[in-house]
Amino acid sequence: MRAGSMPTAFPPDSVGLVTPQIAHFSEPLALACGRALPAYDLIYETYGQLNASASNAVLICHALSGHHHAAGYHSVDDRKPGWWDSCIGPGKPIDTNRFFVVSLNNLGGCNGSTGPSSLNPDTGKPFGADFPVLTVEDWVHSQARLADRLGIDQWAAVIGGSLGGMQALQWTITYPDRVRHCLAIASAPKLSAQNIAFNEVARQAILTDPEFHGGSFQEQGVIPKRGLMLARMVGHITYLSDDSMGEKFGRGLKSEKLNYDFHSVEFQVESYLRYQGEEFSGRFDANTYLLMTKALDYFDPAANCDDDLAKTFAHATAKFCVMSFTTDWRFSPARSRELVDALMAARKDVCYLEIDAPQGHDAFLIPIPRYLQAFSHYMNRITL
Amino acid sequence: MRAGSMPTAFPPDSVGLVTPQIAHFSEPLALACGRALPAYDLIYETYGQLNASASNAVLICHALSGHHHAAGYHSVDDRKPGWWDSCIGPGKPIDTNRFFVVSLNNLGGCNGSTGPSSLNPDTGKPFGADFPVLTVEDWVHSQARLADRLGIDQWAAVIGGSLGGMQALQWTITYPDRVRHCLAIASAPKLSAQNIAFNEVARQAILTDPEFHGGSFQEQGVIPKRGLMLARMVGHITYLSDDSMGEKFGRGLKSEKLNYDFHSVEFQVESYLRYQGEEFSGRFDANTYLLMTKALDYFDPAANCDDDLAKTFAHATAKFCVMSFTTDWRFSPARSRELVDALMAARKDVCYLEIDAPQGHDAFLIPIPRYLQAFSHYMNRITL
Repeated sequence: MRAGSMPTAFPPDSVGLVTPQIAHFSEPLALACGRALPAYDLIYETYGQLNASASNAVLICHALSGHHHAAGYHSVDDRKPGWWDSCIGPGKPIDTNRFFVVSLNNLGGCNGSTGPSSLNPDTGKPFGADFPVLTVEDWVHSQARLADRLGIDQWAAVIGGSLGGMQALQWTITYPDRVRHCLAIASAPKLSAQNIAFNEVARQAILTDPEFHGGSFQEQGVIPKRGLMLARMVGHITYLSDDSMGEKFGRGLKSEKLNYDFHSVEFQVESYLRYQGEEFSGRFDANTYLLMTKALDYFDPAANCDDDLAKTFAHATAKFCVMSFTTDWRFSPARSRELVDALMAARKDVCYLEIDAPQGHDAFLIPIPRYLQAFSHYMNRITL
Repeated sequence: MRAGSMPTAFPPDSVGLVTPQIAHFSEPLALACGRALPAYDLIYETYGQLNASASNAVLICHALSGHHHAAGYHSVDDRKPGWWDSCIGPGKPIDTNRFFVVSLNNLGGCNGSTGPSSLNPDTGKPFGADFPVLTVEDWVHSQARLADRLGIDQWAAVIGGSLGGMQALQWTITYPDRVRHCLAIASAPKLSAQNIAFNEVARQAILTDPEFHGGSFQEQGVIPKRGLMLARMVGHITYLSDDSMGEKFGRGLKSEKLNYDFHSVEFQVESYLRYQGEEFSGRFDANTYLLMTKALDYFDPAANCDDDLAKTFAHATAKFCVMSFTTDWRFSPARSRELVDALMAARKDVCYLEIDAPQGHDAFLIPIPRYLQAFSHYMNRITL
């Protein structure tokens, strides 16, 4: 293989080189909080080809710290592909030989879509904490406009894991005619008190960091690094299972002997967590993190339907595929079964898969054979 | 009842008014870290009467944020009794009509025993982060000296929940002849990687608080309030079960409507956690919190016995009572069963009880009927 021969530099089942695009929307978007965004950008990527009848489009919705770069590579030097490359590509579950895949960075994000770190045209300064709080429904409205822009009347499927699954579910409620299949993976119909509690710890870590400056840290030229680090550390624990942490690190020591002091890293798991936290704090926006956790907390579609989840989905016309992972304790299989029970009660077409996996919540990002196989089977059955 | 008639002001099954005492030890205590404490104080309380043969003494070991005040009242104005009042008193599981109960604040604590907030006689300043890191074994040595001082050659029982249970276990290993019964409740033979990870988040919250000042915050006249608050919040989540949080708070709102901003308290669970965190940060020493989490992390008695837990207990002569609670996910029943399996393999006399309780790890502090009953039955069987 010659250096620079780009097409052959990627695995054959990769979508290869991809280039993000930006869509600008200049009509105001009314939001659940009562405010409106006068204009905004959404950054997105597409993989595969839209067919003539625009019947093969699939929307990928990302989770808390995700973004638009779900598959392929931005350059030949990239060491890692997009975050869901194991599931998107030729011959993969979301088969780009069949589907036209759209993956965006959500509004409020920090990877190119308009968000708290963007300049507020009214003030010429970053929005910071002035950026409106968004809900999953707001995202779905903004995504519907992106669909319009791309000429997609109806998605063959809307797919997401975790917070992404909540968006997929919301699509079937808000735009029942615009989605034929909804795949909600490692997700939940709403957060539990414990889920909210963990989010609140993360938020307090950021909000009480002196370098947060009430959200205007950019203007001060600083980052609330400590707060973001702690938020990520606590989040990360909830993404892994007790078992997988045990298998990965156990009580393994960082050096040969214990140091017996307060600040040394004694155990490998401490070192791993600190690294995860520090790496994250250098690349993620603190206001976006607050916004994403709030969107999670607020998601509760049944609240508008007397807390009756079956009633919530009454008008949905989509078929549903719900998947969960046995050791996921952030959004446990029980939370997916609640969803399935409600969908059954609402007489929807629903398929449920509980996958044995030791990896906890993160399993939805991992190429587990049974998961990929079932995912492929479901997607292959979708008629275009 | 006349005002001021103190004895009748307390419930009949209370130990009543108690007064803490202080024991000073002036012989150096060699520590696992390689350093020594030249002298130290231990604050303790006693309930009941030591019998003539000193055969009815029971030691209570406290958990992470516990202290010596386990039962009774310090004054008639006290609104709450000691932290384990439901289990200690006349007719209660640890029956003060039969037993002489000793409850101390561990070395390194912040409730009256020598710890990081005490003055270092060498410098005239608080120890702060200079206070040596302690292990469960160090505590047991310091407790043995207290036993000597009180004329107690052998404990009828050493009893503790959580980190307290680890001390009870360590007693049977370090001083096999000095303990007849060991009750380890909601405990574990060592921390898992996930347990350590949560401790590390708490520590990083404190260590990265600018007001921690490398542990010398007292000299600066400040408290790392934010760090302690976050540490307690994350700890508190692990003390409760998902179910009990759900039952207690669910998704209940603080006010009638959502505020849709980053800083408002939207859900009751957020308000509860913030209150717990703030209250704690005003009464607990940050260096002690670090020290206690380190003692937890380091506890691993099998590490000296080729990781063979059965071998670890080979020389123990005590009888064991192990209790766990079904929804405890900090130290789950599986961790207690590990312990029981090892004790069985070591041919020890062991009794195991798994108690149905929705309250999670905190259950060991709660008067659950079956728990109190079984606890009483075990204690009543102890011959004096």
